Amino acid sequence: MATPLTLYYAAGTCAQVVLIALYEADAQFTLKTLSFSDHEQRSPEYLTLNPKGRVPALVTERGVLTEVPALLLYVAQTYPQAALAPLDDAFALAQMQDFNAYLASTVHVAHAHRMRASRWADDEAAQAAMRAKVQQNMYECFSVIEKHYLGDKPWVMGEQFTVADGYLYILASWLKGDGVDIADFPRVAAHSERMRARASVQKLP
Amino acid sequence: MATPLTLYYAAGTCAQVVLIALYEADAQFTLKTLSFSDHEQRSPEYLTLNPKGRVPALVTERGVLTEVPALLLYVAQTYPQAALAPLDDAFALAQMQDFNAYLASTVHVAHAHRMRASRWADDEAAQAAMRAKVQQNMYECFSVIEKHYLGDKPWVMGEQFTVADGYLYILASWLKGDGVDIADFPRVAAHSERMRARASVQKLP
Ligand SMILES: N[C@@H](CCC(=O)N[C@@H](CS)C(=O)NCC(=O)O)C(=O)O
Ligand SMILES: N[C@@H](CCC(=O)N[C@@H](CS)C(=O)NCC(=O)O)C(=O)O
Repeated sequence: MATPLTLYYAAGTCAQVVLIALYEADAQFTLKTLSFSDHEQRSPEYLTLNPKGRVPALVTERGVLTEVPALLLYVAQTYPQAALAPLDDAFALAQMQDFNAYLASTVHVAHAHRMRASRWADDEAAQAAMRAKVQQNMYECFSVIEKHYLGDKPWVMGEQFTVADGYLYILASWLKGDGVDIADFPRVAAHSERMRARASVQKLP
Repeated sequence: MATPLTLYYAAGTCAQVVLIALYEADAQFTLKTLSFSDHEQRSPEYLTLNPKGRVPALVTERGVLTEVPALLLYVAQTYPQAALAPLDDAFALAQMQDFNAYLASTVHVAHAHRMRASRWADDEAAQAAMRAKVQQNMYECFSVIEKHYLGDKPWVMGEQFTVADGYLYILASWLKGDGVDIADFPRVAAHSERMRARASVQKLP
């Protein structure tokens, strides 16, 4: 029987976050890797699947999901035995989604102004001005994460490892390219260390 | 006894989305309105509550939540009798979160490049170039919403009214200012009409 889940993925992208979650859940799925250098995310076939022309996309028996925070909730709820979210505590679950929504709507977006500035302005000089501010914005975002979201417990949600941890790990892995030294954020740096010890992260393509 | 919830709000902002959800849930809460012209979202007191310096912020007995998609899930889960989300269907719930995550991370961000371009570049000319592209980006975002997310049912999730509907309504209310004619998106326009008939929307300050 064919496996019911297919993850569309590209190297180095936020689709890695979903891959970590699927590995942690011990889920059965097929991995399809798109080549961004060949612009496969804009191919007519892929656009039928995800008209946004981005990764991730997770094809399920009931339809396609295409946004990281929604995919993470889906994986956590579909594989409850993996305990990847505080599913029985509405406030804690909302806190986890709050963190994930901040990463998606503010941190990822701050980072994207370096490689994808053309989304928001056509003018070359304007794109250069956006790239010039990425370092400062990522620094500010990670200050919020360090001081406001992370505590002295090992994981984002405290003692429980959740899907939010893979999300933080991947976005933190972008800091260097954005000109930010992770050592300025000791909790984030220690968190990334802990993540690198996990089988799911070691298994990433 | 004091009510346990306080919503920090500002006129015309995405905090309206949370207010609609709280009205629909028939929740008890205190509304605190910040004046953006007086920069109250950057006051030291408010930054203690929400270091991001933005609205919404919902103060609960257990802590503060500050991101729209998380707040919407929280309201839906805390007031299950209002049936504001498909809570018993993990895939449908993930679809709703997928829509909300798209609004937060792509549509709201596309819009914010008009009024808040200074977040992403210091240079005046660059900010003008960003503003110039908002119309096109909002048009593309609403094309995705019209063709990919909305069907022929009355609400985003089909027959069930959910917290996602207030979110779509408020972001659609920004189209005019962004130079986009809502009439180009018949499903969105009909959805906004249906929303305007609801008591929750009529009660907005
Ligand atoms: N809001 C989406 C963003 C997805 C996204 O921006 N993906 C990037 C990779 S990290 C992408 O596919 N970019 C390809 C492109 O822009 O052509 C999410 O959080 O899932
Ligand atoms: N990612 C946040 C965004 C919140 C946000 O950008 N709020 C705007 C109003 S729509 C704000 O408070 N802006 C004030 C400012 O930038 O000073 C969410 O989805 O809740």
